[in-house]
Amino acid sequence: MPRYKLVIEYDGTPYYGWQLQAEHPSVQGALEAAIEKFSGHPVRVQCAGRTDAGVHATSQVVNVDLEKDMRADTVRDACNAHLKNARELVSVLSAELVDESFNARISARKRHYLYRILNRRSLPALDANRVWHVPWQLDADIMHEAAQTLLGHHDFSTFRSSECQAKSPIKTLDRLDVERIGDEIRIFASARSFLHHQVRSMVGTIAKAGAGRWSVADVRAALDARDRSRCGPMAPSTGLYLIGVDYEG
Amino acid sequence: MPRYKLVIEYDGTPYYGWQLQAEHPSVQGALEAAIEKFSGHPVRVQCAGRTDAGVHATSQVVNVDLEKDMRADTVRDACNAHLKNARELVSVLSAELVDESFNARISARKRHYLYRILNRRSLPALDANRVWHVPWQLDADIMHEAAQTLLGHHDFSTFRSSECQAKSPIKTLDRLDVERIGDEIRIFASARSFLHHQVRSMVGTIAKAGAGRWSVADVRAALDARDRSRCGPMAPSTGLYLIGVDYEG
Repeated sequence: MPRYKLVIEYDGTPYYGWQLQAEHPSVQGALEAAIEKFSGHPVRVQCAGRTDAGVHATSQVVNVDLEKDMRADTVRDACNAHLKNARELVSVLSAELVDESFNARISARKRHYLYRILNRRSLPALDANRVWHVPWQLDADIMHEAAQTLLGHHDFSTFRSSECQAKSPIKTLDRLDVERIGDEIRIFASARSFLHHQVRSMVGTIAKAGAGRWSVADVRAALDARDRSRCGPMAPSTGLYLIGVDYEG
Repeated sequence: MPRYKLVIEYDGTPYYGWQLQAEHPSVQGALEAAIEKFSGHPVRVQCAGRTDAGVHATSQVVNVDLEKDMRADTVRDACNAHLKNARELVSVLSAELVDESFNARISARKRHYLYRILNRRSLPALDANRVWHVPWQLDADIMHEAAQTLLGHHDFSTFRSSECQAKSPIKTLDRLDVERIGDEIRIFASARSFLHHQVRSMVGTIAKAGAGRWSVADVRAALDARDRSRCGPMAPSTGLYLIGVDYEG
């Protein structure tokens, strides 16, 4: 069976997360339904990083097997036609025929996330559901300094959801950069893989330093404690975007 | 009566434009309703640039008179509290007490618009209702070159809606810059004032040059014809943002 790699974008707002659910709309469900419309057979798609309810993606990667050979561009266009008909907020940016050894999750070498904070007093109108609105003043430079203390190979238990299914809490954080552009603070996070809720937990924690309620050393001490109760309040899902996944070659 | 200048942001998607309408939601209606909730008297707000249905603003400017003196920050926060309660997609970014000679429309010295085109094959998911989706290839450099032929003091009848109420079709276009950032083309337009539908008409016309269907000279010839029938197809409202208004001082 030919295997296709798809890169997809979605607005996470109307979905109960990536994962297929019987009773609720999911990104996986929307995409599988669209593919089944033109393939004529049941399909299962696998993604690089399962996103939670409300989390967005500009470049999620999935793999799917079809029974018949189709041109990759035709797969992309057929997906989009059925997604559009169903009024889903999911779009297939590209499709590519890949080797059957390719697996969007297992083959991934690095995952990249963006977290957006709107740091101003007034609520977002244009970016409602697209950012975390923080009305108190945040110092992005302090947040960046605090973020640098989290880089490297650590036990990230402090920043791990109690529901996380990873075998080990030990991960290597390659990048956690914080920058301010006007009223917006952007946080870029990269790692081979992340624990469940890790990015949102780290963002909520460095935001405590940005607000002056914690020192940079407090953030590092929270990491070293390897204790979930030492984590800052978790940042909401609305500000999180999966923006890229790297593969070999 | 104290007069306040408000800077507001809105998502134009759910509104039938700026202007108050009896039967349909409008930005003006949403804002006046919010102000009346805390002022306790009827108000009328005047804006710098009336936007059409679906057009957004990151920095619309309005003036409003209240019967009682209130701190400007309190006006801003009270507006936002009532806008939030009513689930309006309108946010007051700032409020300022101004002289009664200030008029958001008449005192404006320059208006700035941004037009966003998403230039890729796949439909927008995250930016649905935020851009004009153009699936065929556009050359932003050619569009910029065509745009430069429209700068200056001209009769803009070609780019004027038949419903335009301006006394004269003669305007001075100060800026029409086109740039590409990845899949997105951004067009920045500035002038003291614009005719009704002028920005969207100019964007639709230079997009014909960007698609290679018109030459740069064709765009200039359309301007010189001073004939609405020579305008390219008007770009949709979804890509247009009022991003700033300049005043004296």
